[in-house]
Amino acid sequence: MKLYDMELSGNCYKVRLLCAMLGLDYERIPISLKDGEAETEEFLQLNPRAQIPVLEDDGLVIWDSIAILSYLCRKQDSNLLPTAAEPLARVMQWLAVSENEILYGLARARAINKFGRPFHRNSTRVVAIDALKLIDGHLQDREWLATDQLSIADIACYPYVALAHEGDIDISRYPAIQAWIGRIRQQPGYIDMPGMDNTPLI
Amino acid sequence: MKLYDMELSGNCYKVRLLCAMLGLDYERIPISLKDGEAETEEFLQLNPRAQIPVLEDDGLVIWDSIAILSYLCRKQDSNLLPTAAEPLARVMQWLAVSENEILYGLARARAINKFGRPFHRNSTRVVAIDALKLIDGHLQDREWLATDQLSIADIACYPYVALAHEGDIDISRYPAIQAWIGRIRQQPGYIDMPGMDNTPLI
Repeated sequence: MKLYDMELSGNCYKVRLLCAMLGLDYERIPISLKDGEAETEEFLQLNPRAQIPVLEDDGLVIWDSIAILSYLCRKQDSNLLPTAAEPLARVMQWLAVSENEILYGLARARAINKFGRPFHRNSTRVVAIDALKLIDGHLQDREWLATDQLSIADIACYPYVALAHEGDIDISRYPAIQAWIGRIRQQPGYIDMPGMDNTPLI
Repeated sequence: MKLYDMELSGNCYKVRLLCAMLGLDYERIPISLKDGEAETEEFLQLNPRAQIPVLEDDGLVIWDSIAILSYLCRKQDSNLLPTAAEPLARVMQWLAVSENEILYGLARARAINKFGRPFHRNSTRVVAIDALKLIDGHLQDREWLATDQLSIADIACYPYVALAHEGDIDISRYPAIQAWIGRIRQQPGYIDMPGMDNTPLI
């Protein structure tokens, strides 16, 4: 397998984290967004959205992080993506949150600071705080987001929550989130990405 | 089953459309967003995101349209959501597009006009056009978005594309999209929502 990847991308890290937990090997192909490497003719053939991550597996090309996470779980028959109706729906709920409040709030707040992206700071911040309140409230009496065990819902929501401080968003007011981050970091195969050594934990 | 629903919501219509295609009965509970009915204590117990649709099925409460679509397909063992790794990944790719470019582009452009929402018109429009180009390009040599048959990827992407005109976005420059809309409308069980009789088709 080949992963078109950027080290500082939380979306790419989701795939790297799942691969590490599943014990999957792959070749990393670094793509520099700021050098326009996702906008070449060649790359647009792989992903017309001009985004990373992209996974290439034996001729199959799959873009979008939640699609890649789902693909790898089904290919490996992993219970990190359940198959029954209710637990699958619970995972999908939080994948939707990862693509909405987390991406348009937490990830954008970080992208303003880290990559100079031209998003509106205040409205981004409002969405980011909404995301944290939602997740913290949900985790008050739960260990994991979707079911009673780790799933790709946790893997998809985790990176930009654990990098919130890079967007000047403080998670120290959300102890249930901090405890959840701690649990994820204790999972077998867990790997970090840059910036995560500064996540404020309890 | 109970569906907490708003007639003019494209996200709610996705669930109504799938139920119609699967022949499922349910009770509709109308929720008025503008009257704050999604922000009552009682409703927030159902969905802390204060959004519709919400499905209640025999005590289970499921929020978010892509979660509800997935739940109903698995519950009914419908091939509108495939189970194998590759076709599942293809569906997930377009569910992600439905939650990103389509929601933050096409749906927001409509929400500015129709509900007076305070989104930025120009940047919303740019995302909406990106969505249309992506979908139209993909459909150049395909009948359906994800696989060689209709799936919930089509059901999730369809509403705000077919309502683009309500956000002053013209789809008549995208004939592959127009043909795809025509195919969806010919599916057994298909139902419309308000505004769709004005979709410009070939």
